[in-house]
Amino acid sequence: MTLVQPFEVADLAAMHPADAVEALNDMEAEKGAALLAAMDFRSAVNILEQAGLENGAALVGEIPRAKAAPLLAEIAADRRAEIFRKMEREEARRLLALLPDHARVEMEQLLTYEPDTAGGLMTTEFFRALPEWTVAQSLEAIRTSAATLETVYAAYVVDADGALIRAVSLRELVTADPQTPILSVGSYRKPLFVHPDDPREKVARLISKYDLSAAPVIDASGKILGIVTNDDIIDAIIDDDTEDAQKQGGMEALDAPYMATSFWRMIKKRAGWLSALFLAEMLTASAMQHFESELERAVVLTLFIPLIMSSGGNSGSQATSLIIRALALEEIRLRDWWRVALRELPSGVALGAILGAVGFVRIVLWQKLGVYDYGEHWVLVGFTVSAALVGIVTFGSLTGSMLPFAIQKLGFDPASASAPFVATLVDVTGLVIYFSIALVILRGTLL
Amino acid sequence: MTLVQPFEVADLAAMHPADAVEALNDMEAEKGAALLAAMDFRSAVNILEQAGLENGAALVGEIPRAKAAPLLAEIAADRRAEIFRKMEREEARRLLALLPDHARVEMEQLLTYEPDTAGGLMTTEFFRALPEWTVAQSLEAIRTSAATLETVYAAYVVDADGALIRAVSLRELVTADPQTPILSVGSYRKPLFVHPDDPREKVARLISKYDLSAAPVIDASGKILGIVTNDDIIDAIIDDDTEDAQKQGGMEALDAPYMATSFWRMIKKRAGWLSALFLAEMLTASAMQHFESELERAVVLTLFIPLIMSSGGNSGSQATSLIIRALALEEIRLRDWWRVALRELPSGVALGAILGAVGFVRIVLWQKLGVYDYGEHWVLVGFTVSAALVGIVTFGSLTGSMLPFAIQKLGFDPASASAPFVATLVDVTGLVIYFSIALVILRGTLL
Repeated sequence: MTLVQPFEVADLAAMHPADAVEALNDMEAEKGAALLAAMDFRSAVNILEQAGLENGAALVGEIPRAKAAPLLAEIAADRRAEIFRKMEREEARRLLALLPDHARVEMEQLLTYEPDTAGGLMTTEFFRALPEWTVAQSLEAIRTSAATLETVYAAYVVDADGALIRAVSLRELVTADPQTPILSVGSYRKPLFVHPDDPREKVARLISKYDLSAAPVIDASGKILGIVTNDDIIDAIIDDDTEDAQKQGGMEALDAPYMATSFWRMIKKRAGWLSALFLAEMLTASAMQHFESELERAVVLTLFIPLIMSSGGNSGSQATSLIIRALALEEIRLRDWWRVALRELPSGVALGAILGAVGFVRIVLWQKLGVYDYGEHWVLVGFTVSAALVGIVTFGSLTGSMLPFAIQKLGFDPASASAPFVATLVDVTGLVIYFSIALVILRGTLL
Repeated sequence: MTLVQPFEVADLAAMHPADAVEALNDMEAEKGAALLAAMDFRSAVNILEQAGLENGAALVGEIPRAKAAPLLAEIAADRRAEIFRKMEREEARRLLALLPDHARVEMEQLLTYEPDTAGGLMTTEFFRALPEWTVAQSLEAIRTSAATLETVYAAYVVDADGALIRAVSLRELVTADPQTPILSVGSYRKPLFVHPDDPREKVARLISKYDLSAAPVIDASGKILGIVTNDDIIDAIIDDDTEDAQKQGGMEALDAPYMATSFWRMIKKRAGWLSALFLAEMLTASAMQHFESELERAVVLTLFIPLIMSSGGNSGSQATSLIIRALALEEIRLRDWWRVALRELPSGVALGAILGAVGFVRIVLWQKLGVYDYGEHWVLVGFTVSAALVGIVTFGSLTGSMLPFAIQKLGFDPASASAPFVATLVDVTGLVIYFSIALVILRGTLL
């Protein structure tokens, strides 16, 4: 095992656990493990319990098993499950065997849930109150029974079968008259809860909408299984938004920080979408081949191909990122698609008209100033480019805004409707629109 | 004033305030105001106090002033400031005059802070404890003095000058021995805090890193001015990510939900960037004009222009969205730019090689299967396209990853490095790379 200096251990133990975690995240696992193993038990537990720890499994794997097991037994069940999930199967099996019976059974149960569900995020340690208790009795019970500080988020009142009757927040308890029965505290409402299979997005929405400190997880019979705490949910929201941002950038979500992702993994995450988009974009070559004779007769038309295509892609990218975000925040629902279409259609026409006007002015200016000669039919070329811009920007806005709805309807994540995806869709159609308009306007002159 | 039915009022009052807010958000302000005015005082306060309320200013503006003033006087100072900020100046002045003296003075003070800073987000109601108190005395003081439940997040111990000595969380108070002096609770650390001018991103990072329920805001002398609560911060994180997503989609941030944004405002937010990108993209036409004689001699080259350009844009979009997110999460810092460049360079070459190989195979297949005839020099055309893809994807990855650093270095938000922005940058250079490679490979044959 790596040798560490006593002052290094003392420094780390003296930091706020969240700062110690940042230091550990930047360290080789071997060195971090040596520091944790040399540290007093309580400080090591406080550090391992932080949600921000990135390489918990690697750290624990490097600590001698006789030391690692008691540490694991002491930390909160949700953190422990997270560490076990990322550990190699064989190592996890050996460490599980060293846990106290109740912790092992509980862990085996927690590990059956999918990681990004309420069950996978929950901790099984929380404060249960009995329906006959007063506020004073509940507070006294919290004080005397709480295993660790981290488990006190609210008092969950359960009946004899373990079914959740009521959740009373710490704030409600502390401000209530001590002699009040706990069931009379605050204004009564059915407790808010999630089921173990609910995705973390749903838990995040519940917690942020109702400003909960934790969301209870109950099974089909109403029995409370655990709680998902709001610090986990802030992390979950940040993770979700990171995944969405990466998908919208036209790649698979990385699942790890940029620098912590290996070169080949990075290539794998990016090459898939890049190749798929490339194959789809090959249709542009086919579309161009189709118009080859027009291209040969009017090379001047090729000059504007990139300009026109990119305008369609840009307007599509704006529309798609707007709609993906609005869907993610539930500002709009699937059924609102036609309301969005009715807004994007005139928006697209207006934006296209702006670009069309700018494009026309550019052609007139270049021609008149003698920068470039677009030929004797330059006015018609200008009209062609302008009309194509209106058509393509409208088509881009409409396609970009409808694509996230279509993807969500098909059961996929609308964030996959990336800017590159929309641009590719719009490019092929954009070329066809451009050449079709050219055929109408320029027939008998250039074409 | 709109007439409302008594049962409508009763229904809304019976809902969870967060649900009532959703109903109000979907309603005309006039109708919502009528419901709030007819409701019992406490329920109306609970609703106006929700962070999720979107049109608070419009609602309050429609309630008769004699009723609105007491409601405003009762809600938390941070919510009140938010409502006043969105109100017309004249209306705000009239309502301010109706507030009790202390609330008016406090409000005038809060309104001097910028909205997206700690000062603009904070509430001035929080629980102060005296250094000589025990835990039991502190809990008793919370119970008897708390004006509203919503103000209890932690106990802030202040000295005679109002300077913050220590923050003790509710959780620490509840689990501590009642006879302990409050200054001895938990493990002592200097309190974490922010300054009133700190941006909300900084507050959000402090709260999420240290799992705080609220962050105290102190002035230069150490005096505590207020607290920013974690429910505000979840909203702030979501808002920030929305702004980033919209900027990355190539537009200005909307500052309001999609459906709540007027048609012309939407056009304004989108047309600016779209026109700027359009003007920049015009350089592609200039680049093409420069290579016009090559284009005329080898029309076959134009067939691959969209394919090659879009590949550069797509790889740039991937890289830029990766880096923007990593910078936002502080996974990487400005000074890491060269480490990123050293990763993106080989990534770009590898990704370009994959696309180059696919592109070459496509040309061989089409030629051999007789789908299309690329002419006698089709092998050379294939090499040109492949080599151009390697060059452009490498250039795209490198530009896309460096652009967010450059923008941040210049003092702007790196999220402005949108996919469309990168694509535009890469398009012009991509064309030059393509034609330059063509000139080298095809000289003496096609060119």
